[in-house]
Amino acid sequence: MRPIITLLTDFGDRDPYVGIMKGVIAGLAPEAQCVDLTHNIRRGDIQAGAYALLQPAQYFPSGAIHLAVVDPGVGSRRRPLAVETERGYFVGPDNGLFSFIFAHYEFQAVELTNPNYRLPRVSHTFHGRDIFSPAAAHLALGVPLQAFGPPVTDPVRLPLPRFVEAAADEIEGQIIHSDRFGNLGTSIAWLVWEAGDVLRLEPWIATGVLPRRLSASSAVVTLGAGASTTSLAGIRRTFSDVAAGELAAIVSSEGHLQLAVNRGSAEDLLNLHGGEPVRLRIAAEPH
Amino acid sequence: MRPIITLLTDFGDRDPYVGIMKGVIAGLAPEAQCVDLTHNIRRGDIQAGAYALLQPAQYFPSGAIHLAVVDPGVGSRRRPLAVETERGYFVGPDNGLFSFIFAHYEFQAVELTNPNYRLPRVSHTFHGRDIFSPAAAHLALGVPLQAFGPPVTDPVRLPLPRFVEAAADEIEGQIIHSDRFGNLGTSIAWLVWEAGDVLRLEPWIATGVLPRRLSASSAVVTLGAGASTTSLAGIRRTFSDVAAGELAAIVSSEGHLQLAVNRGSAEDLLNLHGGEPVRLRIAAEPH
Amino acid sequence: MRPIITLLTDFGDRDPYVGIMKGVIAGLAPEAQCVDLTHNIRRGDIQAGAYALLQPAQYFPSGAIHLAVVDPGVGSRRRPLAVETERGYFVGPDNGLFSFIFAHYEFQAVELTNPNYRLPRVSHTFHGRDIFSPAAAHLALGVPLQAFGPPVTDPVRLPLPRFVEAAADEIEGQIIHSDRFGNLGTSIAWLVWEAGDVLRLEPWIATGVLPRRLSASSAVVTLGAGASTTSLAGIRRTFSDVAAGELAAIVSSEGHLQLAVNRGSAEDLLNLHGGEPVRLRIAAEPH
Repeated sequence: MRPIITLLTDFGDRDPYVGIMKGVIAGLAPEAQCVDLTHNIRRGDIQAGAYALLQPAQYFPSGAIHLAVVDPGVGSRRRPLAVETERGYFVGPDNGLFSFIFAHYEFQAVELTNPNYRLPRVSHTFHGRDIFSPAAAHLALGVPLQAFGPPVTDPVRLPLPRFVEAAADEIEGQIIHSDRFGNLGTSIAWLVWEAGDVLRLEPWIATGVLPRRLSASSAVVTLGAGASTTSLAGIRRTFSDVAAGELAAIVSSEGHLQLAVNRGSAEDLLNLHGGEPVRLRIAAEPH
Repeated sequence: MRPIITLLTDFGDRDPYVGIMKGVIAGLAPEAQCVDLTHNIRRGDIQAGAYALLQPAQYFPSGAIHLAVVDPGVGSRRRPLAVETERGYFVGPDNGLFSFIFAHYEFQAVELTNPNYRLPRVSHTFHGRDIFSPAAAHLALGVPLQAFGPPVTDPVRLPLPRFVEAAADEIEGQIIHSDRFGNLGTSIAWLVWEAGDVLRLEPWIATGVLPRRLSASSAVVTLGAGASTTSLAGIRRTFSDVAAGELAAIVSSEGHLQLAVNRGSAEDLLNLHGGEPVRLRIAAEPH
Repeated sequence: MRPIITLLTDFGDRDPYVGIMKGVIAGLAPEAQCVDLTHNIRRGDIQAGAYALLQPAQYFPSGAIHLAVVDPGVGSRRRPLAVETERGYFVGPDNGLFSFIFAHYEFQAVELTNPNYRLPRVSHTFHGRDIFSPAAAHLALGVPLQAFGPPVTDPVRLPLPRFVEAAADEIEGQIIHSDRFGNLGTSIAWLVWEAGDVLRLEPWIATGVLPRRLSASSAVVTLGAGASTTSLAGIRRTFSDVAAGELAAIVSSEGHLQLAVNRGSAEDLLNLHGGEPVRLRIAAEPH
């Protein structure tokens, strides 16, 4: 099987920077297959980049190499990293970009210091080309993690999003993501449909929430705080279960509680953009 | 030859959804080669997606697998389909997305019901990942169409665009497409250049227009209806046959009558966006 | 090693045009590997396309085939070209798009006239599909340059950007590029960091500037002319060497003198967009 290298950056699609990284990879590891995740992470938004890496880690073959460059501190003292997990390798800056990976998987990390696995001339402004792409290519060639440099046991981790037991049978989370369709993802996850009306909650990160089962139709989702709150009765199977233009609480394809508007944008309707509180009230355990 | 899987969606390029579909494909059919058609179909615009599939079907190798997801009804009762034609396979929702394919090619279709060719856990909101990508990957592996599920003989077809004999020597069509450059495509097609001034019209869809030859320089193209119409004398070979900023009727690369402005945008100049009538008056048959 | 074909166009990402080019390539040269450089060159901006080709030429393997279509004159009399250099092949219109390649490398060029290496039916509006993609595919198959058509010894070259010795120890260039981050690239290049504070200037194009060494911290960069000029003391290693929101002169990843704002946009701050003069004053030769 050809090794897979995925690419995620905030470089946009106006300049040939991502293509140049693929050129460096093609020169070093011609058999590697490059797959774009996205290059439109908001400029410098490490949190959004970190979140965008989690689902690919779950769905790509376990040996994939995920090369991620959202790197506002390029050229400063932040360390360049390679990380090995059961779900593949991660290569990029040590600035929190792998926070969700560290929260979900056992890992080993090293600092990319070995000059044999860098381009001969390293710029101060494009480590994606000069350090990270050569590292990913050499991982694809089978170079073991330890050969790249010394272990890193204290990589940078961003604070995890809020996800707590707020009251009896009430979980509080927050908006953590919006997608192209204006769907708003929350930190309340993972929700898995079981038979009929039953949802199983398997906490995706360890911030104190207990696993449980709940009745989807009896749940109440409340957005916002203080005077301006919106409440929704029930979690639906899909956005097309409500009329066009109507808001629904659903389970996203990633397994998160999500706010969506059928043929519309929850982000525009609610004017929420990230960070706002979301509460899930569970009426009763289903039988 | 490595199997080819093309991808066309309305997912945009801000989220890793398309990359995740490629990850699923890479895990199941590592030899398959993924090629993006576009992921910027206007959200939920099934008609635009349907039109965008037609030219790739003509220019890709005949065994290619075209995976298309413009799917506002995901999670509802609409059927997931796989379609086989002489120009390759098509995989996606049964919502009209393959209307032009059905209008041009003999086909066989099946509903994607076989759980062996889906991911183990199917979400209600991302069938691109859970149903369509695994189906495309299994087609790439050589699984025969019939193995995916029961035949579908009544797939959804959108109404074909207007394309009729409006009067003696006058054909009426409509604007059906605008591209990045603001070129406006019409339903009057296919036009093929023969020697000199002669154009051959081979009706691209069966809505009553007869094949014929016509003189390009004597043709008159009229846009709009009622008081505000614009008429153009002659069909030009290319937009650079008129001065910068000027409007020309030309034959598009797809063989459609097209309105274009040299180094400008016909869409902006004419303020037309789709659906408006276009008439082609043919002065006389060329000798 | 699989042959590599890169693609650079101004086609955008809304239409399937680039995908169709890859379909034509896949049909003719199934082993070729396509890599996107960018498809978001500003419409018809030949100068921007020409500049965007230079760095990929340096970083891709030397046998790569670079297919570039920024072609406002498609269908007119401009010649279709294939070009061979020590850094690979270049295929596209003869309109100046390869000006920087011609300025940097020895080359041989031919006009693409051989009908065996075109599609059977050539449109007047999409030579990317009908002429350039088939040519790139046949180069990937090993067809020698001379087989495509007659030699071209006078390809179109755009004027090189201003880059001159303006006064004793003062070099004058101009803004030639802005990227997604609002970084402004100048024609003053190539600058290479040596030990400590020393920069080596190796003129990238032959417009009269002499090679030399300079002290980065003593240099003064002046933007604009007349009453509204901005001066910056010193060339920094990276934009994060100044505070957030502050302007710095740095060396870009391409080796050009660049204006950048830490976590901001130099283009927005300075309201410069291309063509404006930039002067580099060198206080004294470093020891």
